[in-house]
Amino acid sequence: MNNRPTINPEKVLISVPLINDDAELSFIEAGRHCPFPIQRVYWISKALDEIRGKHAHHQTVQILFCLSGSVTINLDNGQEKTSLNLTTQNQGVLLEPLVWHEMSRFTNETVLMVLASAPFNEADYIRDYSEFKKIVGEKYDLNE
Amino acid sequence: MNNRPTINPEKVLISVPLINDDAELSFIEAGRHCPFPIQRVYWISKALDEIRGKHAHHQTVQILFCLSGSVTINLDNGQEKTSLNLTTQNQGVLLEPLVWHEMSRFTNETVLMVLASAPFNEADYIRDYSEFKKIVGEKYDLNE
Repeated sequence: MNNRPTINPEKVLISVPLINDDAELSFIEAGRHCPFPIQRVYWISKALDEIRGKHAHHQTVQILFCLSGSVTINLDNGQEKTSLNLTTQNQGVLLEPLVWHEMSRFTNETVLMVLASAPFNEADYIRDYSEFKKIVGEKYDLNE
Repeated sequence: MNNRPTINPEKVLISVPLINDDAELSFIEAGRHCPFPIQRVYWISKALDEIRGKHAHHQTVQILFCLSGSVTINLDNGQEKTSLNLTTQNQGVLLEPLVWHEMSRFTNETVLMVLASAPFNEADYIRDYSEFKKIVGEKYDLNE
């Protein structure tokens, strides 16, 4: 049986170590804190006054970290919505496939860093919200 | 024949894409811009007035990116030294094994993000400079 991906904050918020020596250092290791092989890493800065994301993925799994400043991550699995505010560099958001997501409220200092389970592939994107709703509806609604 | 790892800026500075839409986005893909599997990612902030690093690795390969602010990376292969200033988010430094390295001149805004080819392993560190010189001397001096 297919289950709709959870967007429960207790499940999707991932804490990684924070080492405070004379700086703040956090790390993540593939297969330890990160449940997928890290095939791609990308980072975004200078995104003030912008809403990014606005899509879902068919297969790619990602973890989003805010390394500086803060950012709001809105998640929507087609049934429920939640809003998470990332303000510390050692807390990430696990973004499963078929979760519509938007990132907003970037600050001047915000650096968003994302680990992804696959190389970039435009065919993996669902960029139309009504198409997203249709896909998740067909996939999950019969099970619920 | 073993060759001493190059620290030539033209060889160790790696440029990855920089996409300027309404923000700045850079990415790196394992096996494409990154020559090793990404087994660990770590990030450092709030390192003002500090010199970090001061070690070499036996085997781990890394790439260092400065995602915000700037940082100076000093490299030393036991024979030559070079100093690199990272100021843009899409330029990384490839750090090969047996290269002594120091990171300094962190700013308030500096976020240093590092991709590593292996999980953390204290046994992979060479933390004593005279031991480093001895190891690279024994490994390379006969070839030169």
